[in-house]
Amino acid sequence: MQERTGGITSPRGFRASGLHCGIKKTKKDLALVVSDVPAACGATFTQNRVPAAPVVVDREQLARSPFIRALVVNSGNANACTGDRGMEDARAMISATARALRVHESEVLVSSTGVIGQFLPMQKIAQGIASAGDCLSKEGGEAAAEAIMTTDTFVKQLAVETTLNGVPVTLGGMAKGSGMIAPNMATMLAFMATDAAIAPELLQKTLKRAVDRSFNRITVDGDTSTNDMAVIFANGLAGNLMLTGEADPGFTEFAEALEHLLVRLSKMIVVDGEGATKFVEITVVGAASDADAVKAAKAVANSNLVKTAINGEDANWGRILAAVGNAGIDFKPTETEIYFGDVPVLRRNYRIDFSEEEARRVLQKKEVAIRVQLNGGPGSATFWTCDLSKEYVEINANYRT
Amino acid sequence: MQERTGGITSPRGFRASGLHCGIKKTKKDLALVVSDVPAACGATFTQNRVPAAPVVVDREQLARSPFIRALVVNSGNANACTGDRGMEDARAMISATARALRVHESEVLVSSTGVIGQFLPMQKIAQGIASAGDCLSKEGGEAAAEAIMTTDTFVKQLAVETTLNGVPVTLGGMAKGSGMIAPNMATMLAFMATDAAIAPELLQKTLKRAVDRSFNRITVDGDTSTNDMAVIFANGLAGNLMLTGEADPGFTEFAEALEHLLVRLSKMIVVDGEGATKFVEITVVGAASDADAVKAAKAVANSNLVKTAINGEDANWGRILAAVGNAGIDFKPTETEIYFGDVPVLRRNYRIDFSEEEARRVLQKKEVAIRVQLNGGPGSATFWTCDLSKEYVEINANYRT
Repeated sequence: MQERTGGITSPRGFRASGLHCGIKKTKKDLALVVSDVPAACGATFTQNRVPAAPVVVDREQLARSPFIRALVVNSGNANACTGDRGMEDARAMISATARALRVHESEVLVSSTGVIGQFLPMQKIAQGIASAGDCLSKEGGEAAAEAIMTTDTFVKQLAVETTLNGVPVTLGGMAKGSGMIAPNMATMLAFMATDAAIAPELLQKTLKRAVDRSFNRITVDGDTSTNDMAVIFANGLAGNLMLTGEADPGFTEFAEALEHLLVRLSKMIVVDGEGATKFVEITVVGAASDADAVKAAKAVANSNLVKTAINGEDANWGRILAAVGNAGIDFKPTETEIYFGDVPVLRRNYRIDFSEEEARRVLQKKEVAIRVQLNGGPGSATFWTCDLSKEYVEINANYRT
Repeated sequence: MQERTGGITSPRGFRASGLHCGIKKTKKDLALVVSDVPAACGATFTQNRVPAAPVVVDREQLARSPFIRALVVNSGNANACTGDRGMEDARAMISATARALRVHESEVLVSSTGVIGQFLPMQKIAQGIASAGDCLSKEGGEAAAEAIMTTDTFVKQLAVETTLNGVPVTLGGMAKGSGMIAPNMATMLAFMATDAAIAPELLQKTLKRAVDRSFNRITVDGDTSTNDMAVIFANGLAGNLMLTGEADPGFTEFAEALEHLLVRLSKMIVVDGEGATKFVEITVVGAASDADAVKAAKAVANSNLVKTAINGEDANWGRILAAVGNAGIDFKPTETEIYFGDVPVLRRNYRIDFSEEEARRVLQKKEVAIRVQLNGGPGSATFWTCDLSKEYVEINANYRT
C-alpha cells in the first residue's frame, strides 16, 4: 500500500468538478462527482435524531438501490431543520443532477453542509449543477474537495494504491471537518471512491468498520451534526475479481487500504479543527477491553479541561486521570501510568518525578502524544483530537451572523 | 420560607472560621465549621472513579457514624491522586481538627479542593487548624466561605428560614464552584447546616433528592472532578419534633427549604463559572419522561457549540435542536418549538419567522432563558449553565503553572 497525492478522482473512471454557484459570497460551494459506470455504494450517516434532509433522502435512495453514478454536494447551507421544503429541495438537487448527467434519479446521492435552518437558494443551485456537469474532469477532484469546505482552512484529500490478488487498485477520497466533530459522525463529510470491484454488502460492512476506527475516533468539540456522512463508491474498473466475502484473496489488503485512507483523512480533519493549534493523539492501553479503552480515550479527548491545558502547554496529568475517572469504566488509578510523548508524568502508585521542563518540551510541539497505561487488561484504543483555544470560541461565537 | 443573608453559621449552634495558612500565596485557604453538639450528617460524593483522598476518608468516617461535630476544608490543593501519603494526610487533618476542638476523630469530616497531584503542606495545615480552632465564631461563616474558594470570584453563601410544624428553623450553606462543574458533582464543594432535628437516614435521602435537582442540574464545562461533595449537618437545636419519615408534619417544608437553598447555591456557582459572561437557564418540556427531559437539557447545556453561540449573542437555534438530537432520546423534530426568553425562534414544522432583532435583545441580557418544547409528553427538566468564552480558555490553559 502506498499513499499518492490525489483524491476522489484518482481511481479509474471517476470525474469531478467544483465551482461557486452563489450560496457563499465568493468561495466554491458546489461539487459533483461522477463514476463512468454504476458503482457499488456504502454509506454511514449521522446518529443525530435530527438528520438533515439530504441524509434522509440518501437513506431512501440507497434502500432502493446500492448502485450509484453521481454525487452532488453543496456547502454554505446544511439544508437541515428545513422540513418538507428541505426534503423537496434535496430531491430537486438529485433530479437536476440526474438531468445534467443523463443518469437515472435512483443513481444520485446528495449532501449538504453549512448553516442550519435556512432554505437552499434552489435557482442558483440548479444553475450550478448544470455548469458543474459541463466541467467534470479527471483533474476536478481538488476543486470538488475545495467546494465541500466550510470553515476548513485547507483541502483534505488523498489517494492510496494497493494490490488485490495481483491487481493494482486505487482508493481516493476527500473530506471536510472543522467544528462540530465528534465520534458517531459530526459535521464531517467524507467521500471516497475506488476502482476496486467489491459487492455492495461487503463494501458497506468494510466501510462501517473503517469508519468506527477513524472518523468515529476523532473529536473537536464533542458535538455531532445533523449532516454527517461517509460514503464510498466502488466502480470495479480496476478489473480485480469481485470481492464478495472477507475470505476472498485481496480483501484484507482492500480493508487495510480503506482504513488507512480514512485514518489519514480523519487526522487532517483534526489538524484543521476550529481554532486548533495542536494535534493530539490519545492512546489508552491496558484497559479491560477495547470498548473500555475507547470510552477512556474518548473521555480524555472530549474533556475541555484537558484540551485547554494542552492549549496552554501545561503538563496537567491530573485532568487526564480525572477524565478517565469520568469514563464510566473499571480501572485502578494506582496502577495507572501517563506519558506525554516519551516522558512518564505519572507512574504507578501516583509516583510523580518528571521534569516539568521535559514535559513542556513535548507539549510545545505541534503534535502531542498522550499515552494512558491502565495496566489492567488487553484493551487498547487511539483517539485523535485537538486543543481548545480562544480562537475556537471566536469562530463559534459568531459563525451564523 | 424566606431567604436571609447569612450562611453556614446562621442556624443555631454552628460556628466557623477561615484563614490563610500558607497553601495559597496570600488568600484564605483553610476553613473550619463546628457544631456545638453532634449533628446528623448527610453527604453525596463525586462519581469520578479517581476520588480524592478526603472523599475516600469521609466515606469511611460516615460508614462508622453519621454524627459529626466538625468539618475542616482546605483550598489550593485537592489532595487528589496522592496515593497512600494523601490518605495519611487527610487522616492527619482529621486528627489535628479533633485535637484542636477536643472532639472525637470519628466526628470530623475533611475536604480539599485545588491542584491535583501534589502533596499537602502538612505542617502549615496543622498550624492553620490550631489557629482556626482558636478563632471560631458565629460571624465566621463568611470567612469560611471565602477560604473554600479557588478560582471563584465571589463568596457563595445564603441562609433560608422556614417553619416546621410551628417551629422556626434555619438552613444555611456555602459553596464553591468555578471550573469543572458538571452533573454528578464536579469541583464543587457545598456545605450546609441546619438547626432542624432530622434523622440521619431521612436527611441523607432528602439531601440526595435535592442535590439531584440542583447541583446535578448545573454544568460549566461538562467535567466532573475528583473532589466534589455536598454535605449537610443537622444539629437539632431548633427544637422541632425530630423528622423521621416523609409523612411527618414539617418534612415537606424542610425538603422545600433545602432544595431552595441548594438551587440558589447552584445558580451562584453557574453565575461564577470560569469565564462566564452569561447565566443560561435551559428548560425542556414535553419530553416523554422527566428522565428524557434531563438528558435533552443536559445535552444542550453541555454543547460547546450552543455555549459559544450564546457567548456571541447569536440566535443559533439550529445548534440547540442538533444538541437535542444528540441526547439519545426519542422526539419529533417537526413538533419541536424553541424559545429564547419569550421569543419563539422555532415553531412546529420548522416554521421560523422570528425577528433577529428581538432574539438578539434576549441574548444581550446577562441572564438568558432557553425553552425547548418537544410537545411529545409530560416530561420536563431545567438545567443551568453559562456561556463558553475566551476567558474560560485563558483561565484553564494556565491554571496549574
